[in-house]
Amino acid sequence: MPMYKAPLRDINFVLSDLLDFESLYSQYPQSKEKMTREIVVPYLEVASEFCEKELHPLNQIGDQQGCKLQDGVVTTPDGFKEAYKKYIELGFPSLTGKEAFGGQEFPGLLWIAISEILTSTNWAWGMYSGLSHGAMYTIENHGTDEQKTKFLTPLVSGVWTGTMCLTESHAGSDLGQIRTKAVPNSDGSYAITGEKIFISAGEHDLSENIIHIVLARLPNAPSGTKGISLFIVPKFNLDADGNIDSRNGVTCSSLEHKMGIHGNATCVLNFENAKGFLIGPENRGLNCMFTFMNSARVFTAVQGLAASEASYQGALVYAKERLAMRSISGPKFPDLPADPIIEHPAVRNMLLTQKVFTEGSRALAYYLSTYVDIAELATDESEKKVAEDKLALLTPIAKAFITELGVEVAKHGMQIYGGHGYISEHGMEQIARDVRISTLYEGTTEIQAIDLLIRKVIGSKGSLLFLLTDEIQSFTKEHRGMGLTENMLSKLDLLVKEWLDLSTFIQNKYPENLDEVGGVSVDYLYYSGYVVFAYLWAKMAIVAQNKIDQGTQDEFYSAKVSTAQFYFDRILPRTLTHSALIKSNTESLFKLNPQSFKFD
Amino acid sequence: MPMYKAPLRDINFVLSDLLDFESLYSQYPQSKEKMTREIVVPYLEVASEFCEKELHPLNQIGDQQGCKLQDGVVTTPDGFKEAYKKYIELGFPSLTGKEAFGGQEFPGLLWIAISEILTSTNWAWGMYSGLSHGAMYTIENHGTDEQKTKFLTPLVSGVWTGTMCLTESHAGSDLGQIRTKAVPNSDGSYAITGEKIFISAGEHDLSENIIHIVLARLPNAPSGTKGISLFIVPKFNLDADGNIDSRNGVTCSSLEHKMGIHGNATCVLNFENAKGFLIGPENRGLNCMFTFMNSARVFTAVQGLAASEASYQGALVYAKERLAMRSISGPKFPDLPADPIIEHPAVRNMLLTQKVFTEGSRALAYYLSTYVDIAELATDESEKKVAEDKLALLTPIAKAFITELGVEVAKHGMQIYGGHGYISEHGMEQIARDVRISTLYEGTTEIQAIDLLIRKVIGSKGSLLFLLTDEIQSFTKEHRGMGLTENMLSKLDLLVKEWLDLSTFIQNKYPENLDEVGGVSVDYLYYSGYVVFAYLWAKMAIVAQNKIDQGTQDEFYSAKVSTAQFYFDRILPRTLTHSALIKSNTESLFKLNPQSFKFD
Repeated sequence: MPMYKAPLRDINFVLSDLLDFESLYSQYPQSKEKMTREIVVPYLEVASEFCEKELHPLNQIGDQQGCKLQDGVVTTPDGFKEAYKKYIELGFPSLTGKEAFGGQEFPGLLWIAISEILTSTNWAWGMYSGLSHGAMYTIENHGTDEQKTKFLTPLVSGVWTGTMCLTESHAGSDLGQIRTKAVPNSDGSYAITGEKIFISAGEHDLSENIIHIVLARLPNAPSGTKGISLFIVPKFNLDADGNIDSRNGVTCSSLEHKMGIHGNATCVLNFENAKGFLIGPENRGLNCMFTFMNSARVFTAVQGLAASEASYQGALVYAKERLAMRSISGPKFPDLPADPIIEHPAVRNMLLTQKVFTEGSRALAYYLSTYVDIAELATDESEKKVAEDKLALLTPIAKAFITELGVEVAKHGMQIYGGHGYISEHGMEQIARDVRISTLYEGTTEIQAIDLLIRKVIGSKGSLLFLLTDEIQSFTKEHRGMGLTENMLSKLDLLVKEWLDLSTFIQNKYPENLDEVGGVSVDYLYYSGYVVFAYLWAKMAIVAQNKIDQGTQDEFYSAKVSTAQFYFDRILPRTLTHSALIKSNTESLFKLNPQSFKFD
Repeated sequence: MPMYKAPLRDINFVLSDLLDFESLYSQYPQSKEKMTREIVVPYLEVASEFCEKELHPLNQIGDQQGCKLQDGVVTTPDGFKEAYKKYIELGFPSLTGKEAFGGQEFPGLLWIAISEILTSTNWAWGMYSGLSHGAMYTIENHGTDEQKTKFLTPLVSGVWTGTMCLTESHAGSDLGQIRTKAVPNSDGSYAITGEKIFISAGEHDLSENIIHIVLARLPNAPSGTKGISLFIVPKFNLDADGNIDSRNGVTCSSLEHKMGIHGNATCVLNFENAKGFLIGPENRGLNCMFTFMNSARVFTAVQGLAASEASYQGALVYAKERLAMRSISGPKFPDLPADPIIEHPAVRNMLLTQKVFTEGSRALAYYLSTYVDIAELATDESEKKVAEDKLALLTPIAKAFITELGVEVAKHGMQIYGGHGYISEHGMEQIARDVRISTLYEGTTEIQAIDLLIRKVIGSKGSLLFLLTDEIQSFTKEHRGMGLTENMLSKLDLLVKEWLDLSTFIQNKYPENLDEVGGVSVDYLYYSGYVVFAYLWAKMAIVAQNKIDQGTQDEFYSAKVSTAQFYFDRILPRTLTHSALIKSNTESLFKLNPQSFKFD
């Protein structure tokens, strides 16, 4: 089993030093008393202990055993159920829920930090509770009072869990094609019939009931995305008092065999005249989903971060222990039979890449998460608007970029182990398999790229982008000319300028050359990701340098500055390729017509 | 099961149009009569039929079942044994073996082409026979006449298979650390004792005997790499007539659980006073291995190519069939509910990247393989030397670059499938898992990078490099100013110039700044790979353009030219990052000392 210890030092750095969360959340009455170091730190420590001691040991077991389906009943791997019971006892499911329904009403940032630790230790297990958040969120925002009373309390406490039932076998990203039907019953409910696939946590033995949020079409609904409605479909029907009653018409007909996240049940669910309740307005189901989708995407970004952290930790331990060959510049440990592989430049390079991506991902995910919170907490309309706009811009970047980096980091983790990286017992290959889902679900990287470039940047005529570039430029203006970090800030200024130029360059092709715009969208997304990371790394370097200037001897801070420097020197040159690809000829992308693609 | 059809059209293009293999091999008496279209084409067709019909259907079965170990006996997945029997009947094991031992003495190029098809259809299965080649090669080149007579005939026919036993749990790339002992017996044989790990095909039920080639130390051997000798250790001892006799002291104590290639038995082998026979001179075991290692690396490159082809084929079929959303520039198939995803620029980009890497990998692997053959076939010493030198330079590039591209191509294949890419039944994730071993075994990418830069380029003071750059420059000189391909050739000239400049830049740091040299080695390898591919793509474009100019209507050739253009326009900008990284500051790579790497 690979080593894992919750990275509380770095989490605290991001929360306190980078984001100054106490000051930030003290501005809002609902969070003022909750988001203090006195409350948050112990909470994180309890979560860390639970994850390290309870969840981490179940991670390889879950991978090996997977879930089992027999007669419609799904059994999760050994220990999953008991761990979930403990998780409820510790009160984690209710962390962000509304107090009216038994929740603790913490802002999402705390949940994000805990989710990171939880996912690093056991991604598959974490999805059971993770998916509940989507269901709760939907009911909280779009449900009637009666629906809230009935469904939210047990979801918030965690004794019930939830799912999101969107995908059908022929319709994934293109939800406009879904066919599941909802026919009105005489009692005001609906009979839902259809097949949904890829339903994570769709059926399992952790909770007493499962509340499915289902996309379906009403009779005579308009075709496409404008004819989709949203329904609550419980696994067990409820009696008049809200207690569990008869089994509803929803069954798991099979479990998918997947590359990873074996411990999570990915279900094919059959709805056959299942009793459902309309949530939100008719035919407006997709609109009701939008806000949820954003928060699901932030959560997926956190999963990418979590995999990176897990892989980095595993690789670091090995790189310090494993002895192979001598350092290229001469023996570093002449008394040992060989030097530890961390002394080899190529290994060092991979480790630093892991470190810089992991810590950068944490900074971005947590930073983004503050906007999710501000959008909800702020009462000032313009403040709320700014938060929503930044969220709109940064979400596709964070989702796609952090998960793609997670895939890369996990690859380095295996590579550092050499042949041992391929062997299951060391755990590195499981991380690589688990993280691979994250660039696929909740909208592929390519979907995020289109969302970012076409909907967000071009769609706002650049205004969403300017909001962020203005923030970065004010930051550099404030801090330039201050010594050690000057080289980073001058590079950052050049990058932001180029980002704006590239955006204009693409915008000028719109709407005449849409295929070209689409053809560079993924490069634009990567470019944007590297700039945003550069901003956050510069910020972290300055925060750390300030601590050093103030006399700290804690080498954490000097390591932070060196790591930032590595990002600027050894990672940022990647932008050269992306900017060249954005600017250069895309003709060859479209020259070969689909019929000429052949392999025989 | 994903679609697969042997890409005979492209294989023939590389063999005939690009390499003009008939003319090439007609220069050597041993190959003149064998390497003709009349013989090679039907051979490839037989191999294709066998692989498509027999091996491909076993690929997912092998992945699901894996190998089983009980009481020291390894059982391969259903059908593996029967397929191997057919494989022997078809005469494939003896393809390159010496006629004196029942072989057909074909040059390696034909075997490489067949290996590609074989590995695309069933990588794990292909390794059983693949490993035999190492054993045969070693015995052929270093064995005594008696050893050849005893062991080669059944290996060549395929009724026996072979292994290479190098790695021990603490010693992988660093073979100098191995501890397995060889103690002389009174009869001239040796008693071998020790544990070897990661032994592919180390124990299985396909063949009657298994011939292990084992690295071990003689008593009082010098420490490190200069004290390693090579031994033949059969699973079953032989009687005086060479027939199978008693079981030898080598047993499989466990099978590794791996990310992929489940159908191949990766064994821990215990040698306990196993009877072995010294092969080659005492303490010179590693030297005897060097030539074999090169050919094993070429074979691994072919595995990378094979995975790319399999992934490309699977993805292409899906991209043409799967309907999702409308093309960004307007509906292409208004009568269908949505457009095929091949119409989306991001999907098109991934498919073309798959295509350009797959076909480029084939060109490089086959081109390289001709040098393996020439080095053996040529009688002229200087011709032999040139072939060996090009082989020395190109082998680490091909091994590392083609396998890394295989990993990337397999990732695109999954990504094109969206969520379905993560589901086992479609086969795309198995390709991604299987190919992942190829950047790890036979020397990791990082090891290849050091081999290329330090041993080959710097070690030869550039002379190996100049051999290739001269070849490329003569090629561009011959073809420049000839129309459509001019833009490619002018880019290629610039690239070669930059490649030489970068090499000089690095060489100037040697030997004062070895860590810096090591720190840029992987970027240098990637850069080199992209240049070599550019050379081969330019060559292919010219060959294809000539056909077009001669009036062919076959769209294969116009597709080839467009694909080459895609490579130059949309792939080559990747060199910008690598050249910038080679030239820029590596200080930050070494600033953080190993003790400051922490995660807690």
